[in-house]
Amino acid sequence: MNVKPYGLAVKAVICDGQGRCLLLRRSAYNKNFVGKWEWPGGKVDQGEDFATAVHREVAEEAGLTIELTGLAGATSFEMPKISVVVLCMEARLVGGSVKLSEEHDAADWVSFPTLAQQDLAENMRPFMLDYAARQSTKGRS
Amino acid sequence: MNVKPYGLAVKAVICDGQGRCLLLRRSAYNKNFVGKWEWPGGKVDQGEDFATAVHREVAEEAGLTIELTGLAGATSFEMPKISVVVLCMEARLVGGSVKLSEEHDAADWVSFPTLAQQDLAENMRPFMLDYAARQSTKGRS
Repeated sequence: MNVKPYGLAVKAVICDGQGRCLLLRRSAYNKNFVGKWEWPGGKVDQGEDFATAVHREVAEEAGLTIELTGLAGATSFEMPKISVVVLCMEARLVGGSVKLSEEHDAADWVSFPTLAQQDLAENMRPFMLDYAARQSTKGRS
Repeated sequence: MNVKPYGLAVKAVICDGQGRCLLLRRSAYNKNFVGKWEWPGGKVDQGEDFATAVHREVAEEAGLTIELTGLAGATSFEMPKISVVVLCMEARLVGGSVKLSEEHDAADWVSFPTLAQQDLAENMRPFMLDYAARQSTKGRS
């Protein structure tokens, strides 16, 4: 039985309008998942609105301004002291050009069908591939 | 393109340990979905932690104490002025007996395979049936 407290994190699936989403590579600055690719995002600050958190994290980590366009879905993973629920929001690029923080050392726009070939952070990988599969199916229907 | 602000709501899928979840029927006190069945839950207050909101809503609407056991998933729906993201948490009953607020006028424990026969609130119905199908599959595997 899970008795750890829950924390909330957010991620942005930023699409470029050409079927690709933005991935960032985690730098050696991080304690875990160094070298792994992920969607921008992070913890929701105490008292912060989740949508505000998405905009803030994307601005901090990628230097981009976005508009939220829908819900991608939610997933969860365990950390030593908390269970983390991750709310993933679909977004479109509004402005800015990619500028990374110390948390990442590379950025790439990756098409959904090729997401499985990326070295994705393990805690988000199942959800990301499931989402990519749904996007690929949607494109064909 | 969606330019409405996003709001966050939570729902609790409270299981009784016998494969049934708690449904509440919306009373005439509500503006919409009167007579429809739903999981307990509601809007996250400004500055409130989502997990705190689940516990609070379940206490207010059902008089029950719960423990969160996992993520059921997330869905979204549109209201006139906001887009609502609904985070659904799995929970187990810890204490209390069902006591309804003015928002509901009936409660029932319903097994997942029979959820589709209930007159569910339309904004949550697709997600609820998808979740029920996943639970039924899980039970068979």
